[in-house]
Amino acid sequence: MNKEQILAHVQSQMTEKRFTHTLGVMETARKLANQYGSNADSAELAAMIHDVAKCWPVKDQAAYILEHKLDASLLNYEKELWHAEVGAHYAREQYGITDQNICDAIRYHTSGRPDMSLLEKIVWVADYIEPNRAFEGVKKARKLAEISLEETMLYGLNSTIMFLLEKNKMVYPTTMYARNDILMQLTQED
Amino acid sequence: MNKEQILAHVQSQMTEKRFTHTLGVMETARKLANQYGSNADSAELAAMIHDVAKCWPVKDQAAYILEHKLDASLLNYEKELWHAEVGAHYAREQYGITDQNICDAIRYHTSGRPDMSLLEKIVWVADYIEPNRAFEGVKKARKLAEISLEETMLYGLNSTIMFLLEKNKMVYPTTMYARNDILMQLTQED
Repeated sequence: MNKEQILAHVQSQMTEKRFTHTLGVMETARKLANQYGSNADSAELAAMIHDVAKCWPVKDQAAYILEHKLDASLLNYEKELWHAEVGAHYAREQYGITDQNICDAIRYHTSGRPDMSLLEKIVWVADYIEPNRAFEGVKKARKLAEISLEETMLYGLNSTIMFLLEKNKMVYPTTMYARNDILMQLTQED
Repeated sequence: MNKEQILAHVQSQMTEKRFTHTLGVMETARKLANQYGSNADSAELAAMIHDVAKCWPVKDQAAYILEHKLDASLLNYEKELWHAEVGAHYAREQYGITDQNICDAIRYHTSGRPDMSLLEKIVWVADYIEPNRAFEGVKKARKLAEISLEETMLYGLNSTIMFLLEKNKMVYPTTMYARNDILMQLTQED
Protein backbone atom coordinates (compact mmCIF):
# COMPACT_ATOMS: atom_id res chain seq x y z
CA MET A 1 0.00 0.00 0.00
CA ASN A 2 1.14 3.56 -0.59
CA LYS A 3 0.78 6.29 2.03
CA GLU A 4 -2.55 7.57 0.70
CA GLN A 5 -4.05 4.07 0.76
CA ILE A 6 -2.76 3.46 4.26
CA LEU A 7 -4.17 6.77 5.50
CA ALA A 8 -7.58 5.99 4.00
CA HIS A 9 -7.58 2.54 5.59
CA VAL A 10 -6.47 3.91 8.95
CA GLN A 11 -9.33 6.39 8.78
CA SER A 12 -11.79 3.53 8.19
CA GLN A 13 -10.72 1.96 11.51
CA MET A 14 -11.49 4.89 13.79
CA THR A 15 -13.82 7.67 14.86
CA GLU A 16 -13.58 11.12 13.32
CA LYS A 17 -12.13 12.49 16.56
CA ARG A 18 -9.42 9.83 16.62
CA PHE A 19 -8.58 10.55 12.98
CA THR A 20 -8.24 14.27 13.75
CA HIS A 21 -5.86 13.30 16.54
CA THR A 22 -3.94 11.09 14.11
CA LEU A 23 -3.51 13.97 11.66
CA GLY A 24 -2.25 16.10 14.56
CA VAL A 25 0.31 13.50 15.56
CA MET A 26 1.47 13.18 11.93
CA GLU A 27 2.01 16.91 11.63
CA THR A 28 3.77 17.15 15.00
CA ALA A 29 5.93 14.08 14.36
CA ARG A 30 7.10 15.57 11.05
CA LYS A 31 7.98 18.86 12.77
CA LEU A 32 9.83 17.15 15.61
CA ALA A 33 11.71 14.92 13.18
CA ASN A 34 12.94 17.98 11.29
CA GLN A 35 13.80 19.75 14.53
CA TYR A 36 15.71 16.85 16.06
CA GLY A 37 17.32 15.47 12.90
CA SER A 38 15.29 12.33 12.26
CA ASN A 39 13.59 11.06 9.10
CA ALA A 40 10.35 13.04 8.73
CA ASP A 41 8.72 10.52 6.38
CA SER A 42 9.30 7.66 8.80
CA ALA A 43 8.02 9.74 11.71
CA GLU A 44 4.90 10.69 9.76
CA LEU A 45 4.24 7.10 8.70
CA ALA A 46 4.59 5.75 12.25
CA ALA A 47 2.29 8.54 13.47
CA MET A 48 -0.23 7.73 10.73
CA ILE A 49 -0.56 4.14 11.91
CA HIS A 50 0.07 4.49 15.67
CA ASP A 51 -3.60 4.43 16.76
CA VAL A 52 -4.99 2.18 14.02
CA ALA A 53 -6.34 -0.30 16.58
CA LYS A 54 -7.31 2.25 19.25
CA CYS A 55 -11.00 2.28 18.36
CA TRP A 56 -11.35 -1.46 17.96
CA PRO A 57 -13.46 -3.12 20.65
CA VAL A 58 -11.02 -4.02 23.45
CA LYS A 59 -11.98 -7.67 23.27
CA ASP A 60 -10.85 -7.66 19.63
CA GLN A 61 -7.55 -6.08 20.66
CA ALA A 62 -7.05 -8.78 23.30
CA ALA A 63 -8.00 -11.50 20.83
CA TYR A 64 -5.54 -10.13 18.27
CA ILE A 65 -2.73 -10.20 20.84
CA LEU A 66 -3.49 -13.81 21.74
CA GLU A 67 -4.10 -14.97 18.16
CA HIS A 68 -0.80 -13.56 16.89
CA LYS A 69 1.15 -14.60 19.99
CA LEU A 70 2.11 -11.02 20.84
CA ASP A 71 3.06 -9.96 24.38
CA ALA A 72 0.14 -11.34 26.39
CA SER A 73 1.55 -10.00 29.68
CA LEU A 74 0.03 -6.68 28.57
CA LEU A 75 -3.40 -8.14 29.21
CA ASN A 76 -2.64 -7.94 32.95
CA TYR A 77 -2.26 -4.18 32.65
CA GLU A 78 -4.38 -1.25 31.53
CA LYS A 79 -6.26 -1.88 28.29
CA GLU A 80 -5.02 1.50 27.00
CA LEU A 81 -1.71 -0.27 26.30
CA TRP A 82 -3.08 -2.98 24.07
CA HIS A 83 -3.74 -1.08 20.85
CA ALA A 84 -0.06 -0.18 20.48
CA GLU A 85 1.02 -3.81 20.57
CA VAL A 86 -1.70 -4.65 18.03
CA GLY A 87 -0.91 -1.65 15.82
CA ALA A 88 2.77 -2.53 15.44
CA HIS A 89 1.92 -6.02 14.21
CA TYR A 90 -0.95 -4.80 12.07
CA ALA A 91 1.36 -2.26 10.39
CA ARG A 92 3.54 -5.10 9.17
CA GLU A 93 0.76 -7.51 8.24
CA GLN A 94 -1.78 -5.16 6.67
CA TYR A 95 0.32 -2.28 5.40
CA GLY A 96 3.55 -4.10 4.64
CA ILE A 97 5.71 -1.89 6.88
CA THR A 98 9.04 -3.69 7.18
CA ASP A 99 11.06 -0.93 8.89
CA GLN A 100 11.55 -2.24 12.42
CA ASN A 101 12.14 1.25 13.78
CA ILE A 102 8.72 2.37 12.50
CA CYS A 103 7.01 -0.70 13.94
CA ASP A 104 8.76 -0.13 17.29
CA ALA A 105 7.72 3.52 17.33
CA ILE A 106 4.12 2.32 17.00
CA ARG A 107 4.59 -0.46 19.53
CA TYR A 108 6.04 1.74 22.29
CA HIS A 109 4.10 4.94 21.65
CA THR A 110 2.05 4.51 24.85
CA SER A 111 4.15 2.41 27.23
CA GLY A 112 7.55 3.74 26.30
CA ARG A 113 10.52 1.46 27.00
CA PRO A 114 14.16 1.83 28.03
CA ASP A 115 16.67 2.74 25.29
CA MET A 116 14.14 4.31 22.98
CA SER A 117 15.37 5.34 19.54
CA LEU A 118 15.06 8.94 18.37
CA LEU A 119 12.09 7.96 16.18
CA GLU A 120 10.36 6.23 19.09
CA LYS A 121 10.80 9.33 21.25
CA ILE A 122 9.47 11.58 18.49
CA VAL A 123 6.28 9.57 18.03
CA TRP A 124 5.78 9.28 21.80
CA VAL A 125 6.14 13.04 22.24
CA ALA A 126 4.09 13.90 19.14
CA ASP A 127 1.24 11.76 20.47
CA TYR A 128 1.49 13.57 23.80
CA ILE A 129 1.52 17.18 22.59
CA GLU A 130 -0.26 17.25 19.21
CA PRO A 131 -2.43 20.38 18.72
CA ASN A 132 -5.75 18.70 19.59
CA ARG A 133 -4.55 17.60 23.05
CA ALA A 134 -6.14 19.66 25.82
CA PHE A 135 -5.11 18.07 29.16
CA GLU A 136 -3.78 20.09 32.07
CA GLY A 137 -0.08 20.53 31.58
CA VAL A 138 -0.05 20.19 27.79
CA LYS A 139 1.24 23.77 27.40
CA LYS A 140 4.19 22.96 29.61
CA ALA A 141 4.81 19.76 27.66
CA ARG A 142 4.82 21.70 24.37
CA LYS A 143 7.33 24.19 25.79
CA LEU A 144 9.55 21.33 26.92
CA ALA A 145 9.38 19.72 23.48
CA GLU A 146 10.95 22.85 22.03
CA ILE A 147 14.02 22.20 24.16
CA SER A 148 14.30 18.45 24.75
CA LEU A 149 12.48 15.25 23.83
CA GLU A 150 13.82 13.64 27.00
CA GLU A 151 12.57 16.42 29.29
CA THR A 152 9.16 16.12 27.64
CA MET A 153 9.12 12.37 28.07
CA LEU A 154 10.17 12.57 31.72
CA TYR A 155 7.36 15.02 32.35
CA GLY A 156 4.84 12.88 30.47
CA LEU A 157 5.89 9.54 31.93
CA ASN A 158 5.92 10.98 35.47
CA SER A 159 2.42 12.38 34.91
CA THR A 160 1.17 9.07 33.52
CA ILE A 161 2.58 7.05 36.41
CA MET A 162 1.21 9.51 39.00
CA PHE A 163 -2.21 9.28 37.39
CA LEU A 164 -2.12 5.47 37.63
CA LEU A 165 -0.97 5.60 41.26
CA GLU A 166 -3.72 8.04 42.20
CA LYS A 167 -6.39 6.01 40.43
CA ASN A 168 -5.23 2.72 41.94
CA LYS A 169 -4.45 1.25 38.56
CA MET A 170 -1.64 -1.13 37.69
CA VAL A 171 1.58 0.51 36.48
CA TYR A 172 3.09 -1.35 33.55
CA PRO A 173 6.68 -2.08 34.64
CA THR A 174 8.16 -1.20 31.25
CA THR A 175 6.76 2.32 31.66
CA MET A 176 8.56 2.64 34.99
CA TYR A 177 11.78 1.34 33.41
CA ALA A 178 11.33 3.82 30.55
CA ARG A 179 10.96 6.68 33.02
CA ASN A 180 14.04 5.65 35.03
CA ASP A 181 16.02 5.30 31.81
CA ILE A 182 15.05 8.77 30.57
CA LEU A 183 15.95 10.22 33.98
CA MET A 184 19.38 8.54 33.72
CA GLN A 185 19.88 9.97 30.21
CA LEU A 186 19.09 13.46 31.50
CA THR A 187 21.31 13.07 34.58
CA GLN A 188 24.26 11.91 32.49
CA GLU A 189 23.80 14.90 30.17
CA ASP A 190 24.30 17.38 33.03
CA MET B 1 23.49 -12.89 71.63
CA ASN B 2 20.28 -12.55 73.57
CA LYS B 3 17.72 -9.83 72.90
CA GLU B 4 19.10 -7.42 75.50
CA GLN B 5 22.61 -7.75 74.09
CA ILE B 6 21.36 -7.23 70.55
CA LEU B 7 19.38 -4.16 71.58
CA ALA B 8 22.41 -2.64 73.32
CA HIS B 9 24.60 -3.32 70.28
CA VAL B 10 21.98 -1.89 67.91
CA GLN B 11 21.88 1.23 70.07
CA SER B 12 25.67 1.58 69.76
CA GLN B 13 25.31 1.76 65.95
CA MET B 14 22.98 4.75 65.77
CA THR B 15 21.99 8.21 66.91
CA GLU B 16 19.66 8.71 69.85
CA LYS B 17 16.89 9.81 67.49
CA ARG B 18 17.26 6.68 65.39
CA PHE B 19 17.19 4.53 68.51
CA THR B 20 13.97 6.22 69.67
CA HIS B 21 12.52 5.42 66.25
CA THR B 22 13.68 1.81 66.61
CA LEU B 23 11.90 1.48 69.97
CA GLY B 24 8.77 2.90 68.35
CA VAL B 25 8.93 0.37 65.52
CA MET B 26 9.44 -2.47 68.02
CA GLU B 27 6.38 -1.44 70.00
CA THR B 28 4.26 -0.99 66.90
CA ALA B 29 5.43 -4.23 65.30
CA ARG B 30 4.50 -6.15 68.46
CA LYS B 31 1.03 -4.57 68.47
CA LEU B 32 0.44 -5.24 64.79
CA ALA B 33 1.64 -8.84 65.17
CA ASN B 34 -0.88 -9.41 67.93
CA GLN B 35 -3.60 -7.69 65.94
CA TYR B 36 -2.98 -9.58 62.72
CA GLY B 37 -2.05 -12.96 64.22
CA SER B 38 1.68 -13.09 63.66
CA ASN B 39 4.52 -13.93 66.07
CA ALA B 40 5.08 -10.83 68.24
CA ASP B 41 8.59 -11.84 69.33
CA SER B 42 9.73 -12.28 65.74
CA ALA B 43 8.16 -8.98 64.75
CA GLU B 44 9.85 -7.18 67.65
CA LEU B 45 13.23 -8.74 66.88
CA ALA B 46 13.09 -7.80 63.20
CA ALA B 47 12.04 -4.28 64.21
CA MET B 48 14.89 -4.08 66.71
CA ILE B 49 17.48 -4.77 64.02
CA HIS B 50 15.83 -3.21 60.96
CA ASP B 51 17.78 0.09 61.00
CA VAL B 52 21.03 -1.19 62.48
CA ALA B 53 23.04 0.06 59.49
CA LYS B 54 20.99 3.21 58.84
CA CYS B 55 23.43 5.57 60.57
CA TRP B 56 26.55 4.04 59.10
CA PRO B 57 28.35 6.27 56.59
CA VAL B 58 26.81 5.47 53.21
CA LYS B 59 30.19 4.56 51.77
CA ASP B 60 30.47 1.88 54.47
CA GLN B 61 27.02 0.58 53.54
CA ALA B 62 28.05 0.40 49.88
CA ALA B 63 31.35 -1.27 50.79
CA TYR B 64 29.51 -3.85 52.93
CA ILE B 65 27.18 -4.70 50.03
CA LEU B 66 30.12 -5.19 47.68
CA GLU B 67 32.31 -7.03 50.19
CA HIS B 68 29.61 -9.54 51.06
CA LYS B 69 28.39 -9.88 47.49
CA LEU B 70 24.88 -8.69 48.33
CA ASP B 71 22.56 -7.17 45.71
CA ALA B 72 24.82 -4.54 44.14
CA SER B 73 22.09 -3.39 41.74
CA LEU B 74 20.80 -1.40 44.72
CA LEU B 75 23.78 0.90 44.36
CA ASN B 76 22.16 2.27 41.19
CA TYR B 77 19.18 3.43 43.23
CA GLU B 78 18.57 5.71 46.21
CA LYS B 79 21.04 5.22 49.05
CA GLU B 80 18.10 5.07 51.50
CA LEU B 81 17.62 1.48 50.28
CA TRP B 82 21.10 0.24 51.11
CA HIS B 83 20.92 -0.07 54.90
CA ALA B 84 18.13 -2.65 54.69
CA GLU B 85 20.20 -4.95 52.49
CA VAL B 86 23.13 -4.54 54.86
CA GLY B 87 21.00 -4.98 57.99
CA ALA B 88 19.54 -8.32 56.89
CA HIS B 89 23.02 -9.77 56.36
CA TYR B 90 24.40 -8.16 59.51
CA ALA B 91 21.56 -9.68 61.56
CA ARG B 92 22.72 -13.13 60.56
CA GLU B 93 26.45 -12.52 60.83
CA GLN B 94 26.61 -10.40 63.98
CA TYR B 95 23.52 -11.40 65.90
CA GLY B 96 23.15 -14.98 64.76
CA ILE B 97 19.60 -14.55 63.46
CA THR B 98 18.86 -17.68 61.42
CA ASP B 99 15.12 -17.18 60.87
CA GLN B 100 14.86 -16.34 57.17
CA ASN B 101 11.51 -14.61 57.67
CA ILE B 102 13.06 -12.20 60.19
CA CYS B 103 16.02 -11.49 57.90
CA ASP B 104 13.65 -10.89 54.98
CA ALA B 105 11.51 -8.54 57.07
CA ILE B 106 14.66 -6.49 57.69
CA ARG B 107 15.78 -6.76 54.07
CA TYR B 108 12.52 -5.52 52.54
CA HIS B 109 11.43 -3.02 55.19
CA THR B 110 12.15 -0.07 52.88
CA SER B 111 11.83 -1.35 49.31
CA GLY B 112 9.04 -3.82 49.84
CA ARG B 113 8.78 -6.66 47.33
CA PRO B 114 6.03 -8.75 45.71
CA ASP B 115 4.59 -11.62 47.74
CA MET B 116 5.55 -10.22 51.12
CA SER B 117 4.95 -12.43 54.14
CA LEU B 118 2.73 -11.27 57.00
CA LEU B 119 5.83 -10.54 59.09
CA GLU B 120 7.40 -8.51 56.29
CA LYS B 121 4.23 -6.44 55.96
CA ILE B 122 4.07 -5.88 59.72
CA VAL B 123 7.63 -4.57 59.92
CA TRP B 124 7.14 -2.41 56.82
CA VAL B 125 3.97 -0.86 58.25
CA ALA B 126 5.39 -0.51 61.80
CA ASP B 127 8.35 1.39 60.36
CA TYR B 128 5.95 3.65 58.47
CA ILE B 129 3.53 4.53 61.28
CA GLU B 130 5.46 4.20 64.59
CA PRO B 131 4.54 6.93 67.14
CA ASN B 132 7.56 9.16 66.44
CA ARG B 133 6.75 9.51 62.74
CA ALA B 134 5.40 12.97 61.91
CA PHE B 135 5.07 13.21 58.11
CA GLU B 136 2.00 14.52 56.36
CA GLY B 137 -0.43 11.67 56.00
CA VAL B 138 0.81 9.59 58.94
CA LYS B 139 -2.54 9.92 60.72
CA LYS B 140 -4.30 8.50 57.71
CA ALA B 141 -1.74 5.69 57.53
CA ARG B 142 -2.33 4.85 61.20
CA LYS B 143 -6.08 4.71 60.63
CA LEU B 144 -5.59 2.42 57.66
CA ALA B 145 -3.34 0.14 59.74
CA GLU B 146 -6.25 -0.46 62.10
CA ILE B 147 -8.17 -1.98 59.21
CA SER B 148 -5.70 -3.48 56.75
CA LEU B 149 -1.94 -3.93 56.36
CA GLU B 150 -2.38 -4.02 52.59
CA GLU B 151 -4.33 -0.75 52.46
CA THR B 152 -1.61 0.87 54.56
CA MET B 153 1.12 -0.47 52.32
CA LEU B 154 -0.65 0.66 49.15
CA TYR B 155 -0.98 4.14 50.61
CA GLY B 156 2.65 4.18 51.75
CA LEU B 157 4.14 2.71 48.57
CA ASN B 158 2.09 5.08 46.39
CA SER B 159 3.30 8.03 48.48
CA THR B 160 6.90 6.87 48.29
CA ILE B 161 6.80 6.43 44.52
CA MET B 162 5.08 9.79 43.99
CA PHE B 163 7.74 11.47 46.12
CA LEU B 164 10.49 9.92 43.99
CA LEU B 165 8.74 10.93 40.76
CA GLU B 166 8.30 14.52 41.95
CA LYS B 167 11.91 14.78 43.12
CA ASN B 168 13.29 13.27 39.89
CA LYS B 169 14.83 10.35 41.71
CA MET B 170 15.16 6.79 40.48
CA VAL B 171 12.31 4.44 41.42
CA TYR B 172 13.60 1.02 42.49
CA PRO B 173 11.70 -1.43 40.27
CA THR B 174 11.06 -3.88 43.13
CA THR B 175 9.14 -1.14 44.93
CA MET B 176 6.92 -0.67 41.87
CA TYR B 177 6.39 -4.44 41.66
CA ALA B 178 5.56 -4.50 45.38
CA ARG B 179 2.96 -1.78 44.89
CA ASN B 180 1.35 -3.52 41.90
CA ASP B 181 1.29 -6.78 43.85
CA ILE B 182 -0.40 -5.20 46.87
CA LEU B 183 -2.95 -3.56 44.56
CA MET B 184 -3.67 -6.97 43.02
CA GLN B 185 -4.11 -8.52 46.48
CA LEU B 186 -6.61 -5.81 47.39
CA THR B 187 -8.46 -6.10 44.08
CA GLN B 188 -8.80 -9.85 44.43
CA GLU B 189 -10.14 -9.43 47.97
CA ASP B 190 -13.07 -7.31 46.75
